Amino acid sequence: MRDIPAREAEGATDEELRLLDAHWRAANYLAVGQIYLMDNPLLTEPLRAEHIKPRLLGHWGTSPGLNLVHTHLNRVIAARDLDAMCVWGPGHGGPAVLANSWLDGSYTETYPDVSRDAPGMARLFRQFSFPGGVPSHVAPETPGSVHEGGELGYALSHAYGAALDNPGLLVACVIGDGEAETGPLATSWHSNKFLDPVHDGAVLPILHLNGYKIANPTVLARLPEPELDELMRGLGHEPIHVTGTPDDDPLDVHRAMAVAMDTALDRVAAIQRSAREEGVTERPRWPVVVLRTPKGWTGPAEVDGLPVENTWRAHQVPLASVRENPDHLRQLEAWMRSYRPGELFGEDGRPLPDVLATMPRGPRRLGANPHANGGLLLRELPVPPLERYAVEVDPGKPGATQHEPTRVLGGLLEDVMEATTDSRDFRVVGPDETASNRLEALYRATGKAWEAETLPTDEHLARGGRVMEILSEHTCQGWLEGYLLTGRHGLFSCYEAFVHIVDSMVNQHIKWLRVTRTLPWRRPIASLNYLLTSHVWRQDHNGFSHQDPGFIDHVLNKAPEVVRVYLPPDANTLLSVADHVLRSRDYVNVVVAGKQPCFDWLTLDQARAHCARGAGVWEWAGTEDGVREPHVVLACAGDVPTQEVLAAASLLREHLPELSVRVVNVVDLARLLPEEEHPHGMTDAEFDALFTPDRPVVFAYHGYPWLIHRLTYRRTNHRDLHVRGYKEIGTTTTPFDMVVRNDLDRYRLVMDVIDRVPGLAVRAAPVRQHMEDQRLRHHDWIREHGADLPEVAQWRWNA
Amino acid sequence: MRDIPAREAEGATDEELRLLDAHWRAANYLAVGQIYLMDNPLLTEPLRAEHIKPRLLGHWGTSPGLNLVHTHLNRVIAARDLDAMCVWGPGHGGPAVLANSWLDGSYTETYPDVSRDAPGMARLFRQFSFPGGVPSHVAPETPGSVHEGGELGYALSHAYGAALDNPGLLVACVIGDGEAETGPLATSWHSNKFLDPVHDGAVLPILHLNGYKIANPTVLARLPEPELDELMRGLGHEPIHVTGTPDDDPLDVHRAMAVAMDTALDRVAAIQRSAREEGVTERPRWPVVVLRTPKGWTGPAEVDGLPVENTWRAHQVPLASVRENPDHLRQLEAWMRSYRPGELFGEDGRPLPDVLATMPRGPRRLGANPHANGGLLLRELPVPPLERYAVEVDPGKPGATQHEPTRVLGGLLEDVMEATTDSRDFRVVGPDETASNRLEALYRATGKAWEAETLPTDEHLARGGRVMEILSEHTCQGWLEGYLLTGRHGLFSCYEAFVHIVDSMVNQHIKWLRVTRTLPWRRPIASLNYLLTSHVWRQDHNGFSHQDPGFIDHVLNKAPEVVRVYLPPDANTLLSVADHVLRSRDYVNVVVAGKQPCFDWLTLDQARAHCARGAGVWEWAGTEDGVREPHVVLACAGDVPTQEVLAAASLLREHLPELSVRVVNVVDLARLLPEEEHPHGMTDAEFDALFTPDRPVVFAYHGYPWLIHRLTYRRTNHRDLHVRGYKEIGTTTTPFDMVVRNDLDRYRLVMDVIDRVPGLAVRAAPVRQHMEDQRLRHHDWIREHGADLPEVAQWRWNA
Repeated sequence: MRDIPAREAEGATDEELRLLDAHWRAANYLAVGQIYLMDNPLLTEPLRAEHIKPRLLGHWGTSPGLNLVHTHLNRVIAARDLDAMCVWGPGHGGPAVLANSWLDGSYTETYPDVSRDAPGMARLFRQFSFPGGVPSHVAPETPGSVHEGGELGYALSHAYGAALDNPGLLVACVIGDGEAETGPLATSWHSNKFLDPVHDGAVLPILHLNGYKIANPTVLARLPEPELDELMRGLGHEPIHVTGTPDDDPLDVHRAMAVAMDTALDRVAAIQRSAREEGVTERPRWPVVVLRTPKGWTGPAEVDGLPVENTWRAHQVPLASVRENPDHLRQLEAWMRSYRPGELFGEDGRPLPDVLATMPRGPRRLGANPHANGGLLLRELPVPPLERYAVEVDPGKPGATQHEPTRVLGGLLEDVMEATTDSRDFRVVGPDETASNRLEALYRATGKAWEAETLPTDEHLARGGRVMEILSEHTCQGWLEGYLLTGRHGLFSCYEAFVHIVDSMVNQHIKWLRVTRTLPWRRPIASLNYLLTSHVWRQDHNGFSHQDPGFIDHVLNKAPEVVRVYLPPDANTLLSVADHVLRSRDYVNVVVAGKQPCFDWLTLDQARAHCARGAGVWEWAGTEDGVREPHVVLACAGDVPTQEVLAAASLLREHLPELSVRVVNVVDLARLLPEEEHPHGMTDAEFDALFTPDRPVVFAYHGYPWLIHRLTYRRTNHRDLHVRGYKEIGTTTTPFDMVVRNDLDRYRLVMDVIDRVPGLAVRAAPVRQHMEDQRLRHHDWIREHGADLPEVAQWRWNA
Repeated sequence: MRDIPAREAEGATDEELRLLDAHWRAANYLAVGQIYLMDNPLLTEPLRAEHIKPRLLGHWGTSPGLNLVHTHLNRVIAARDLDAMCVWGPGHGGPAVLANSWLDGSYTETYPDVSRDAPGMARLFRQFSFPGGVPSHVAPETPGSVHEGGELGYALSHAYGAALDNPGLLVACVIGDGEAETGPLATSWHSNKFLDPVHDGAVLPILHLNGYKIANPTVLARLPEPELDELMRGLGHEPIHVTGTPDDDPLDVHRAMAVAMDTALDRVAAIQRSAREEGVTERPRWPVVVLRTPKGWTGPAEVDGLPVENTWRAHQVPLASVRENPDHLRQLEAWMRSYRPGELFGEDGRPLPDVLATMPRGPRRLGANPHANGGLLLRELPVPPLERYAVEVDPGKPGATQHEPTRVLGGLLEDVMEATTDSRDFRVVGPDETASNRLEALYRATGKAWEAETLPTDEHLARGGRVMEILSEHTCQGWLEGYLLTGRHGLFSCYEAFVHIVDSMVNQHIKWLRVTRTLPWRRPIASLNYLLTSHVWRQDHNGFSHQDPGFIDHVLNKAPEVVRVYLPPDANTLLSVADHVLRSRDYVNVVVAGKQPCFDWLTLDQARAHCARGAGVWEWAGTEDGVREPHVVLACAGDVPTQEVLAAASLLREHLPELSVRVVNVVDLARLLPEEEHPHGMTDAEFDALFTPDRPVVFAYHGYPWLIHRLTYRRTNHRDLHVRGYKEIGTTTTPFDMVVRNDLDRYRLVMDVIDRVPGLAVRAAPVRQHMEDQRLRHHDWIREHGADLPEVAQWRWNA
């Protein structure tokens, strides 16, 4: 832990303070205006009820604090010519960030109809939280933002993600004291053990304690200052405190804030200098600004006899009945006039020079920094030709060899990592599972980011490494989102069951992507790619708690234009899918693949063709004559189901050779959806051609079986579709026992075929009995021997 | 912040240390045996390959540390006659906790076939991670546990939940340094601001730094000790450090650990005494034990030339090839014999007196404490008669009045809270939304738990209050789970969208409940009840980020014997549902209800009858003649869809009076499932009677429409089922605009009826056009006025 001594920062001159205050007052005025007014924006006439919106929506409480931070960021950015962006954790304070973007001109550049004059101001006010207007939060529509901040919890991990591999960038991050109580935020402070002062930019957390959430005080605001100080230091930071109270002259707070910002940035500069120029490697103690200002500062002190400013009552709309209550109306007018708008805006509504004096210019403005519109900076990811990594498969002998698919993928990822050594725009994140998931080839190309202490026994830890592991799925997700949103590429490798931990985060990212697709000025960014391995069928060490394939169901509820789900059944199909998803844009791609040895079914060329179709017949696996319709379709999606289906097909060929069986494999799950419901959806004609309009379909699926029904319920042949999958029956047991317990095993599939193909029941009764016997034999064997029957464990499909 | 001075603790005598070490060695021996052996448990003959399990599964790394903690908890429990339980965060260290339960006899009392002798030891070893045996983790099957610990993150919030309202209980909680990196754990440290030393028991966190996760060092283990110390102090704790290294004599570590435990418990006692006897109210600084011991301590130092003990390589099975590799076999035997089993177990396999000397007796044993089998302690919740709270409805005039359903529920909850003033076994948790969700009547009966600083402007904060609010859904969920698992009652009130934050936690709780239902010795506990309000249709302030009804889909993927989902459409149905779920056992109940004014449809008696059926025809709303089948069924589930369906029925009555319309409301969503898939599922005959076998059904549903298809795809009339719901189209807009955007509005529903009832298309074309016009009129109006058309906002169904 390294403390960098810093000189006493100088802060701002009195004249600067006056200008900063003008900017802050202007932003506050504009924030209030957005919440309340639909007319008379400059208060050129006395406020009347009809100037007031009929529905008063928005969050005033956090806005003056956000405005204060924005004002002071403007100052230091301009003064130091910083390349800077800001993550606004209290994103529900939309009025503040919108006000500032309008003031710095970036809003008008993005939305020319909201001009920086009186008509534009009127439009800015009216559109806020208005039907057909703009959301009340900092949203994708907001220039300069990569962060919605509605849900809370992700501000700091987003900020770190943005700073990684951007050595010239400063990422300020406002953390509300409400957000600070969330788990994801609480652990993301430790990101400072992963940020390299040489290769990465700086994150400046600004912990904004306005004291209250919706209806309660916040925990951190009610800690004695020494305890909070210990907490910040224990989290690896040097706290710099700034406090404003309702009784303070704002100019004094501006003065303190200016000194604090200068102190913090001097310290950041000193840390970077010592690491970059002097080669110091000890982990530095980065600054954090702890800013205490009253909730709803400068708003009404009291309303209807109850204190509002500096209490939770200032959270949303302090004066709630302005249209109906003349007292409230008068109070609102007095409040707005307290900012002295005549000193801030000309008669034409344009901000006066004083207001704009301390602002940066051009792309240095927070509303215009290109990092906050990452697609502008995105480069192609150099994905090498797959031939280098493909496993060899004799097309005449599919299933003759086995590989661990994720280990094969590791080779590809190694070379992508290697090829981005200079551009440094690719990272792999995961909760301590990269090696467990057999991707350790990556460590030949880079290390694991680690700035804390290292010991001689450690392996692969490296300052500036681009694999990032922390046992927090939330932090992994937040880092990667921040990294992607600022124009880079990445992959999140995760245990399948525990990716549910970030269900809510991925919701928000999908929502973000969905909206950005409607905004031409937002350029496409790289997709968020999940590799889910250590999946439900192979939790040999861990059992029931680690068995859950429901993330697929979760994402398939979301925007179909954003979501893709792939279940590659072997190594070469995984390569082909990986190649596709790594090159794609604006998607959330979920790839589920095994890390255990898996039969190699397809050559690389076959794999590419199969993945391009997304679903198709594996002729070599079936027994169709190519003339008649088959008697039955055996369909599969997922590596383990594919193995069981092929084993079932093999058993059918042996025991019921006269049966005509078609084997269909589905890689791209959305292919099953109707074409009008998903861009990858099949037409009914395609679906009927693949699954037949009237033959029984026995479908072995990786996850919850009813998902397949939910995707296919409109199809002609849905009545004849019978799905096997994971039925939430799990424990610590053998791999084959897992499929038996869930009725997904080869024997059960053969029994299903016999039960469903008309006319087979009597004729094939002995075969059915044989299958039952095999299941019982399995059952007895594993209880005696503790391992699967050798014939199952070593089975070869085409042996 | 109050520091309690404590005398120097005395720790253990030399003789005690010898006995403690014997117990520890015995537990270590038993842990290794479980991972490796299926025979020869006492090593009465040289170890041979056939004694070794064919699949070596489990986690050795954390086991010696857990054993150390267990040994020392035994000592202080016995010495101080403590009522204590322990939450084992590193629950994957199943071998350790199982070993200790076997040693203290609780295992054999629970599972008599695993006797505390040689045959029982053989069974204990063999069953571990063996097909048909026991899971590798601390699981529901493990006596003395309320915590699975597979996913990691919830140990400390579970521990606090257990301690609440149990003033005589000590809850020790082992937190692994891996788990400490998770977000949920990181913020749950702040639970100490909510624990009241008078009314609640004590939590003793034991932060166990063994240095490594699966493949990496841990963040906290690599902090310099002063920084970690600051962190613990900043989190409100007094750290007590104990360190063992591979070079230390274990007796020295035992000595230090005994002093640390005594110091910690003296401090706990002093805190409780000063609060309870002296009336001190200042928040105390609770102790935390920071225990550093090597990962895989006492295991193989090196394997195949690589260091194992004290590295991540000790995480699972240190010697991986024991059956195949004679060197590994020899190493294993030497390792097991290093514990000197001859000094620990008699020839009959029974633990010798030295091993058992320091253990507590009877229910004081950690494996036998009744708090860890909470159903044993559960009392009936005193739910008062609903008549007191019911809103008055004239059965001849349904929809004549409006109430906010959750506010009505608040009255009931207030009285439940009041009635449990002495028993203190009911709590309401939520992320700062109790008042926002209109449940503030609760504050007449209790306060909000708060031990931190209070200010004169604060309201309802109270030491010992039984409403708990922290802006962390994870912590709320963890507290409530811990509270329920130890035999109490509760309710989690949450925004609908953000309950996804705990998707993964509820998964684990459902899994836990599912397994406990198969264990007769686990007594039923109170259900985990969610009240999801501020739902998808009413996010006026917040917009798209707050709109997500997918939690219902998520839970309906899980064990049907555990999961229930209710969508009460008005105040009285909410009361009836609440009454039911609060009395229920072993379920996860999801109740989705509005907080906005809602029409009152049913009298209390009607509501009770309707909820008992779960789904039924609302004759008064339809136009059936009771003789013929209706032309169409309008079905609804959820408050907003019900309102729109009734409005549509009203429009149909007005515009197409000759049409025979049936209105069906569904409260209990699982009723739609087939009876063989859910205990609440309807028979096909019931379903056909309700929804007709062949008439068009237009179903307005609260959430994602395809969920209704997934529930009903096997029903006779599924082809004629047309579902409207939330299509992931959201923003900040008016309530009626939300339903219009998602095609759930009354006008669209009427159009759907016209489109689907045979023969209506031409005849009703003008009506259809009128509906289209109404939608356009709405569209223009809100863009002009910023609020809904008065006729929509003030519409009365039976006006």
